[in-house]
Amino acid sequence: MANPLKTLKEAAIIESLKKRFKPKGRDVFVGIGDDAAVVRGGKGKYILYTADMLIEGVHFKRGEDTKKVGYKAVAVSVSDIAAMGGLPQYAIVSVGLPKNNVDRTARGLYNGIRLCAEKFGVDVIGGDTNRSQRLVIDVFMAGTVEKKHLALRSTAKPGDHIFITGPLGGSIKGRHLFFEPRVKESRFLVKNFRVSSMIDISDGLGTDLNRVTDASRTGALIFENKIPKNKGVKSVESALFDGEDFELLFTLPGREALRLMSMMNKKRAPFRFFPIGRITDLFCGVRMVTAGGKVAEIPCAGFKHF
Amino acid sequence: MANPLKTLKEAAIIESLKKRFKPKGRDVFVGIGDDAAVVRGGKGKYILYTADMLIEGVHFKRGEDTKKVGYKAVAVSVSDIAAMGGLPQYAIVSVGLPKNNVDRTARGLYNGIRLCAEKFGVDVIGGDTNRSQRLVIDVFMAGTVEKKHLALRSTAKPGDHIFITGPLGGSIKGRHLFFEPRVKESRFLVKNFRVSSMIDISDGLGTDLNRVTDASRTGALIFENKIPKNKGVKSVESALFDGEDFELLFTLPGREALRLMSMMNKKRAPFRFFPIGRITDLFCGVRMVTAGGKVAEIPCAGFKHF
Repeated sequence: MANPLKTLKEAAIIESLKKRFKPKGRDVFVGIGDDAAVVRGGKGKYILYTADMLIEGVHFKRGEDTKKVGYKAVAVSVSDIAAMGGLPQYAIVSVGLPKNNVDRTARGLYNGIRLCAEKFGVDVIGGDTNRSQRLVIDVFMAGTVEKKHLALRSTAKPGDHIFITGPLGGSIKGRHLFFEPRVKESRFLVKNFRVSSMIDISDGLGTDLNRVTDASRTGALIFENKIPKNKGVKSVESALFDGEDFELLFTLPGREALRLMSMMNKKRAPFRFFPIGRITDLFCGVRMVTAGGKVAEIPCAGFKHF
Repeated sequence: MANPLKTLKEAAIIESLKKRFKPKGRDVFVGIGDDAAVVRGGKGKYILYTADMLIEGVHFKRGEDTKKVGYKAVAVSVSDIAAMGGLPQYAIVSVGLPKNNVDRTARGLYNGIRLCAEKFGVDVIGGDTNRSQRLVIDVFMAGTVEKKHLALRSTAKPGDHIFITGPLGGSIKGRHLFFEPRVKESRFLVKNFRVSSMIDISDGLGTDLNRVTDASRTGALIFENKIPKNKGVKSVESALFDGEDFELLFTLPGREALRLMSMMNKKRAPFRFFPIGRITDLFCGVRMVTAGGKVAEIPCAGFKHF
């Protein structure tokens, strides 16, 4: 569920799914369309559900270190839970294992799964193991969030400040398999600030910012020279569209943004956050002020799945 | 999670997983090893979690009607929830779709998913859509069960009577794609009887009975001429090992079994149940009295996955 709208094609599929699968249960608070589904869980809490599938030849190469693949499969779902302001709790892991080297593949995969699960306090409580032509792994995750701390992607307001949790771009050089989901950052934010919206940057800032503005029915204006880039990343296109950064993108109302920035100035914030622009009215579209002072439209075009 | 122990190879993987992933959360009541994981859910209820993956070329043929594949993918998980005595609630569906005919494939698949979901009152609340070489679908399901109605596979006792919910064998002729998960039967049983154990017959009576006796540390004795067979099924081997029946196998203590049988005799039971034998002590093994009056060992050997 990290990346429901990778392309227009997939966007169309998801839109039709949203119409087709309107939830009937009165406990469903958010169905298809955010980083995770949200279900009422009693006692001031929501339960969060998400699933992410990784397929050999699509999301990683044949012969890739299966430990890293296992780690990533869990980390992607952890990142989805973090993007809702929540804490991950349980994982159920379905795998399809090729016949060759099944023991070694399984060992690597489950070592990676355990590494990430233990790091983030996730209990792996079930799964389904199958034979398959190509390696496939699907991690389902359940998490929890206090009702008052839930962060959606659909609730940004014009005037809100846009922040990201870290530098972007170039993750394909290896970081995309072994990244750090921003759970601590997310929990710090939702506990200390009125976060008006949040999403994880799975398909690139360009695409994921468009998801926030689409869902919130707003526009956005960001500044090229405020976007932090990873080492070795030169073009802003790379920072906007490479994807798989798994940093968080979040918005704060004016006063809250000032409070966060003043906290950072006084070196009292435990993490660094990067202000990159503002939420605007819908009719302004999603735009960027370039380093040269021009205004460019940012299209929704991340990693192509179809 | 229907079929964790299809072969010794897979049994070994699952055993190592159970050791590797010991749950730390105090709310995990049952982790890896039953039809579904069981988590405390407050107010006298448990939450049940299960996942089942279907892969083209392994669980169904290339070119198979994708509507049936979608139906089955949901039905297998519904059956897992039924096997715990519970009611299914939410599904998250991850799919990998081949590039060719992606629209038609997706439409068929999601129609099948919806058909089964609506039939059993399941809300599809999320998912992950990907490109893939071969069609793959993984359904994660959350359900609920009253604490007093939870039915495990590990709690059968010597002397208990063994029942099944319907005839077995020959499902490969088409029924395996379009079967009826036994939710109503399960709910009738757990609400009206002290069910001492339950499992769904996914890999054949032979294999799944062995799972109950392994988990419960008991033996079992069943009678060939008491096992109901589907039309066209001639050999008892077919009834024991074809698999994919998705009937329930359950056990009742002596008095409860007599009560159920008397209810059936008086035509006051809404469903038909078939007594096929008794749970015995561990050292007796899992055996069958053949039609010819001999005693044969029933090995644990269902559908081979590796």
